[in-house]
Amino acid sequence: MELSGRNQLAATVKTVKLGNIMAEVVMELSGGQEMVAAITRASAENLALKPGDRVTAIVKATEVMVGK
Amino acid sequence: MELSGRNQLAATVKTVKLGNIMAEVVMELSGGQEMVAAITRASAENLALKPGDRVTAIVKATEVMVGK
Amino acid sequence: MELSGRNQLAATVKTVKLGNIMAEVVMELSGGQEMVAAITRASAENLALKPGDRVTAIVKATEVMVGK
Amino acid sequence: MELSGRNQLAATVKTVKLGNIMAEVVMELSGGQEMVAAITRASAENLALKPGDRVTAIVKATEVMVGK
Amino acid sequence: MELSGRNQLAATVKTVKLGNIMAEVVMELSGGQEMVAAITRASAENLALKPGDRVTAIVKATEVMVGK
Amino acid sequence: MELSGRNQLAATVKTVKLGNIMAEVVMELSGGQEMVAAITRASAENLALKPGDRVTAIVKATEVMVGK
Repeated sequence: MELSGRNQLAATVKTVKLGNIMAEVVMELSGGQEMVAAITRASAENLALKPGDRVTAIVKATEVMVGK
Repeated sequence: MELSGRNQLAATVKTVKLGNIMAEVVMELSGGQEMVAAITRASAENLALKPGDRVTAIVKATEVMVGK
Repeated sequence: MELSGRNQLAATVKTVKLGNIMAEVVMELSGGQEMVAAITRASAENLALKPGDRVTAIVKATEVMVGK
Repeated sequence: MELSGRNQLAATVKTVKLGNIMAEVVMELSGGQEMVAAITRASAENLALKPGDRVTAIVKATEVMVGK
Repeated sequence: MELSGRNQLAATVKTVKLGNIMAEVVMELSGGQEMVAAITRASAENLALKPGDRVTAIVKATEVMVGK
Repeated sequence: MELSGRNQLAATVKTVKLGNIMAEVVMELSGGQEMVAAITRASAENLALKPGDRVTAIVKATEVMVGK
């Protein structure tokens, strides 16, 4: 499946922290910058996310703000 | 002003395309990956965005999906 | 690639309308309800979306409101 | 009140799980597909959401990605 | 229908600008601050939005960033 | 840094509630209306948010729905 989401950034999982409902996934982009996702705990468990996993951080273009 | 937005990625504007209501801003992250923002045309004009601008791409953690 | 996005709904494209920057994709879910996506025109073109396409409508759980 | 949100899907609540800050609401769309919302715990309590409730899952068109 | 969306702000429409796909709705909150919504053109037309309309600006809590 | 986000509302923090992963920040807009943000706990801690803080509630125009 190919996605309409314009931003699909190669990343590596650094840490996964599970709460009751949500989970925080800290990733490192291939260029070294850090990216954080707040997803449901169930999603993090479904994907069995763990440090070192090669993943893709996906963001819709409509969700991106620009600061200058 | 410091932002709660967890993802603040250094980027350079590559292209800005203006529509009637929306604008598409293509950026290159410092690591070389591309990032696209769909913002309002008025915002693009307020910031006077143009190719070569050093900007920050800002994304809330709750807007990031993870693919594995 | 498996996605963390909790909502991945099977759908069929009914119409695709292209603007300068954005595109509107009207889909019919397998259960008959309608779903509309506003994505960038470039995304609609990259996916070559057209009526009759079998697609997946993807929504993060954090984007869903509930009315009662 | 009528909403600008294009996607208003009839659904039935299957489960409600409360965390400290957030809550996860699993719904079944009228066509049988499942939809999950991550809302604040306070919202879930304000609406007194419980299994069996007939609800509407509401999503802005700009939040929907398309996969093909 | 009562909504889970935590932020439901009383507002008055100041201007509505229609594009091909999207529309920009500028509102004034009851406290005098301005709020802008980018919704689909079809939504703006369905609601027949026009200057002077008393409306509600609705935002999910997960969509709000905080700057300090 | 100036932001593309169209909605930047002056507000005062009323309460901050911390969960494991997420935090809920209740603010009062200058006009007296209430606004709630669900941000990551780490963000709330980074900003050291506490009652009485003068802050800015930031929302992208694409995240705002209109009810009439």
